[in-house]
Amino acid sequence: MAENRGPVIIVNYKTYTESTGKNAVELAKKAERVHEETGVCVGVVPQLAELATVAKSVAIPVFAQHIDPIRPGGYTGHVLADSVKQAGAVGTLINHSERQLRLSDIEQTIRIAREHGMISVVCANNPSVSAAVAALEPDMIAIEPPELIGTGIPVSKAQPKVITGTIKLVREVNKKVTILCGAGISRGADVVAALKLGTEGVLVASGIVKAMNPYAVIREFADAFKK
Amino acid sequence: MAENRGPVIIVNYKTYTESTGKNAVELAKKAERVHEETGVCVGVVPQLAELATVAKSVAIPVFAQHIDPIRPGGYTGHVLADSVKQAGAVGTLINHSERQLRLSDIEQTIRIAREHGMISVVCANNPSVSAAVAALEPDMIAIEPPELIGTGIPVSKAQPKVITGTIKLVREVNKKVTILCGAGISRGADVVAALKLGTEGVLVASGIVKAMNPYAVIREFADAFKK
Amino acid sequence: MAENRGPVIIVNYKTYTESTGKNAVELAKKAERVHEETGVCVGVVPQLAELATVAKSVAIPVFAQHIDPIRPGGYTGHVLADSVKQAGAVGTLINHSERQLRLSDIEQTIRIAREHGMISVVCANNPSVSAAVAALEPDMIAIEPPELIGTGIPVSKAQPKVITGTIKLVREVNKKVTILCGAGISRGADVVAALKLGTEGVLVASGIVKAMNPYAVIREFADAFKK
Amino acid sequence: MAENRGPVIIVNYKTYTESTGKNAVELAKKAERVHEETGVCVGVVPQLAELATVAKSVAIPVFAQHIDPIRPGGYTGHVLADSVKQAGAVGTLINHSERQLRLSDIEQTIRIAREHGMISVVCANNPSVSAAVAALEPDMIAIEPPELIGTGIPVSKAQPKVITGTIKLVREVNKKVTILCGAGISRGADVVAALKLGTEGVLVASGIVKAMNPYAVIREFADAFKK
Repeated sequence: MAENRGPVIIVNYKTYTESTGKNAVELAKKAERVHEETGVCVGVVPQLAELATVAKSVAIPVFAQHIDPIRPGGYTGHVLADSVKQAGAVGTLINHSERQLRLSDIEQTIRIAREHGMISVVCANNPSVSAAVAALEPDMIAIEPPELIGTGIPVSKAQPKVITGTIKLVREVNKKVTILCGAGISRGADVVAALKLGTEGVLVASGIVKAMNPYAVIREFADAFKK
Repeated sequence: MAENRGPVIIVNYKTYTESTGKNAVELAKKAERVHEETGVCVGVVPQLAELATVAKSVAIPVFAQHIDPIRPGGYTGHVLADSVKQAGAVGTLINHSERQLRLSDIEQTIRIAREHGMISVVCANNPSVSAAVAALEPDMIAIEPPELIGTGIPVSKAQPKVITGTIKLVREVNKKVTILCGAGISRGADVVAALKLGTEGVLVASGIVKAMNPYAVIREFADAFKK
Repeated sequence: MAENRGPVIIVNYKTYTESTGKNAVELAKKAERVHEETGVCVGVVPQLAELATVAKSVAIPVFAQHIDPIRPGGYTGHVLADSVKQAGAVGTLINHSERQLRLSDIEQTIRIAREHGMISVVCANNPSVSAAVAALEPDMIAIEPPELIGTGIPVSKAQPKVITGTIKLVREVNKKVTILCGAGISRGADVVAALKLGTEGVLVASGIVKAMNPYAVIREFADAFKK
Repeated sequence: MAENRGPVIIVNYKTYTESTGKNAVELAKKAERVHEETGVCVGVVPQLAELATVAKSVAIPVFAQHIDPIRPGGYTGHVLADSVKQAGAVGTLINHSERQLRLSDIEQTIRIAREHGMISVVCANNPSVSAAVAALEPDMIAIEPPELIGTGIPVSKAQPKVITGTIKLVREVNKKVTILCGAGISRGADVVAALKLGTEGVLVASGIVKAMNPYAVIREFADAFKK
């Protein structure tokens, strides 16, 4: 996935009922079907307790929602990279606005992900923070102004300058990192707009998870990639 | 388990290599074997990413190491009770000294566990904190002075007054809660001592997980219950 | 103040502009004037940077808004009991809903306050949490449902059962602790209601700090104590 | 201070007994004396409760140890920029290794300091984190590997490559930020080494605060600047 730099759709399950328990695998199957039909890379980000089951059920990339900056040891209730990797995760979100980390922990978590060959997708809430994250050399950055999360108002539309300004600042610091657009994306047109502004994919949650027909939305997003 | 108030052994996997990935199921099988041979209740507490796999592999109680005080919604990277319950957990540790929570979050997490019919095992680091936890009416309290965790020095031996003092304080506030002894337990004699002091079971981690022969240690603990 | 168990009014300055800088001393002077006129005990809780100046300017009790569970040492950016005591604080708020602490830290902070002869005023957001706090034996508990803070809807009116239920639960655990009523109190009638329900004083913030005439409100509260 | 870009010595008081209460002003007087004798810029960073008193007593720059990313409002127990500024602070430490912040909070705190005309001194624990901090455009960065703090082993000696590597990475992102060297500095020779490696000053705590003769150490540091 990291090598094949076509645009990507990453579906963050969060902790919605619609993506919990049995729903977790069903949603992953829909994402997989879109991938099979369109060739577009679609990844899913289930909760930890469903991660292994999802990873066994589909052949698309599965991510963790969070890992902790720890090595094996006495860390009850924390998330060890080795554990989620063995459960089938190929990467992890880091510093989502709903699970923010201290700066030194972001740096350490990216380092641990890299050592484990896991893709790091670090979330950032504004251009300046994105530039700081870029300096830590993660694989991907997802731009998500928290005030737009879950609103259905896409950042690519509400704040296009946030995207273009972010890309400019990030590229001054880091030429390689993949830039994703998050927050508020719910239609194919939002995806097209995000790609036109220069991002290379989307990180999306409620727009898909809470949709009446998640398959149709993922498919709409994937088709938008080809326009 | 909550109804059958015989003594219990709860094995906290923490995030040790010895209890990660495939090792998680193997260790659970050993715990199950001791249960089958002795009738003693043995529970296991794997990491979240292994929880579902462990729960499918054995017929003994499986616990989560932590759940968050949340309802379904937008809580990326958090642990939802519904998710771990559907993965097979019958209960959860709360406020382990390595994953401490704010007081109001402990209260809320116990409440959520209760609503989900999950057993709450709340850790406390001293007698006064144990009495406070007792007022929140969890199912179980585990007394674990953090300075003894992982040392091999059992709290029942190093600080017997911590145990007896805690039981006295807890019982003034709460007659029903099950009291477990944790921290530093590594031999059957430690278990005997803990029970004689008035506790009703043990919460143990490295003493079993990092033992040369975990089966033998769990068996030694279970046999100690019968003395 | 702890010995003289008449009812008390504690004015939490929070970080409002109206109570910052020069305003901090002016507000304390108004509180002092009400004390001189009525004999009612009125305490103030300024921000740390104004604490010494306020304490030097008035002869009423001054509290810190928070102290950390630390001893002298390397704790940059933390609040040391010795420091605020030498600056003139006679006590401290602990675990305000806007500055919540881990359970073991509340216990340790109360212990440190006690060692320094400082009055501990621990905030609690519901009856169950209040009972837990009572088990830690602070000098005072302030009941503040966070959903009412700053609303002008007094807990004594919106949720009188919260107050009476809390007092009942707290007294089962602790006979001595002083119980204060907080959240939403803005008129003398609210104070009267709070006292009739069985509390021994009020912790109030915006109702006084952001009032057009803070002196008049404090005076109204003090007069209500005498009804 | 920000304009006069000669080398600076910043003395972090932490929460040591030697720098608490009356000791806070005494130590500031010694720092001021060195400044008067040598012309070298010496700043002090007392605890919040002593900040106003120190600022009134000396004519050298006084900093806060921490401010929170907040505006005036309901933030009990937090540190408001307006409050510490009115108490006399010209700047603040941010993200000290003993008081680390989430990345988005560091960004917001720097922004608030800038709006208040306060000097931001952001601590960073390694080269990669320093580069991330540099992208946030603070006034100063202090490099402090936490494993050296309080050891008396200067980072400039134990890990000179940390300093030179950090300067290189930081300058790729930010040409203007002042780079300070922290952790373990206790002798004039350490200061000379730090400056030779390319830093523009030192952030020092126990090496001065806990010295037998703090004046002599500050003086030795100041003299080292002139070599």
